[in-house]
Amino acid sequence: MSIATDTFRNGVDTEKMFATLDLIKAQPELAKFRFRATNRWIDGSHNRSTIQGFYAAGGEDTTRGEAFELDAGEPAILLGADEGPNPAEYLLHALAACLTTSIVYVAAARKVELTSVESTLTGDMDVRGALGVDDEPRNGFERIGVSFRVTGNAPEEKLREVVERASKRSAVYDMVTNGVPVAVEVTTD
Amino acid sequence: MSIATDTFRNGVDTEKMFATLDLIKAQPELAKFRFRATNRWIDGSHNRSTIQGFYAAGGEDTTRGEAFELDAGEPAILLGADEGPNPAEYLLHALAACLTTSIVYVAAARKVELTSVESTLTGDMDVRGALGVDDEPRNGFERIGVSFRVTGNAPEEKLREVVERASKRSAVYDMVTNGVPVAVEVTTD
Repeated sequence: MSIATDTFRNGVDTEKMFATLDLIKAQPELAKFRFRATNRWIDGSHNRSTIQGFYAAGGEDTTRGEAFELDAGEPAILLGADEGPNPAEYLLHALAACLTTSIVYVAAARKVELTSVESTLTGDMDVRGALGVDDEPRNGFERIGVSFRVTGNAPEEKLREVVERASKRSAVYDMVTNGVPVAVEVTTD
Repeated sequence: MSIATDTFRNGVDTEKMFATLDLIKAQPELAKFRFRATNRWIDGSHNRSTIQGFYAAGGEDTTRGEAFELDAGEPAILLGADEGPNPAEYLLHALAACLTTSIVYVAAARKVELTSVESTLTGDMDVRGALGVDDEPRNGFERIGVSFRVTGNAPEEKLREVVERASKRSAVYDMVTNGVPVAVEVTTD
């Protein structure tokens, strides 16, 4: 029993984690993933994404028994009815979630037992850009602020190192800070 | 009654929309918004964001009676238990939702009545980057593909113009394609 207990740290199966890393080192072609979302407009500012399958490790991953459904909306001031968080808020959530999971995984790999990870994210936007009123302000956030509070059984310096390493490995942090090429196709029938 | 009916197009109150645009043109300082998300680690790959208030039009917007809660997780192959979509999938949803709402609003402004807006998004990732196995692949998606199907009471050319204009005004499209400066702060007590 103690072996099983020792394997899990921060809720992460570290034995499985290191086995996964070894496998991907040995067979890099298994590292090619493709994530997907389908979205459907419902009415006004309300639309819904469905997320379930994805391609991973050489084949379609069908382990998810049910699809996730995510509703997006807008608040009244942006002409919606709060049908869900708005898209820019979803982006803040994606960033918070990715940094947090990265912190938890990096800590698990480095034998740091965390007791809490909390964060507050803010995104500043001049909505004249997105509303098309003025070309000068950009459409998206001018800047994003992330404030983490991380506690665990390690000295402050070690905890800060974990956050720094996690930022350097977070998929969404990379995308949000550096951008990603996006290709848009349209059909109309 | 016919006046009220004419005001709404695609579920968007166009009278309110044009009044909002006029107001922001006249008082640009009202365009400064700040969106927020707070996130808390639960266990392993599971964390949860809470989204409710935001700053808009010169003050805190308190119109949302309840907070939105969003759970993020990872699938088994990425050491989680499917506690929610993963952070990179949330980013795809944020992009799909923002482009869709932009299409709906632009169409409403241009007197195009839409009958459907559907999209499929894919994000290609070599997970060696995010897992820290290899420094060569980037952490995030190498590319994102967006495939829209848009139908409505307008010729194909007009519908394509609406999508193009919407891409040029979408907040999340701007952020995902161009990147945003992100400042990370950490406290450990």
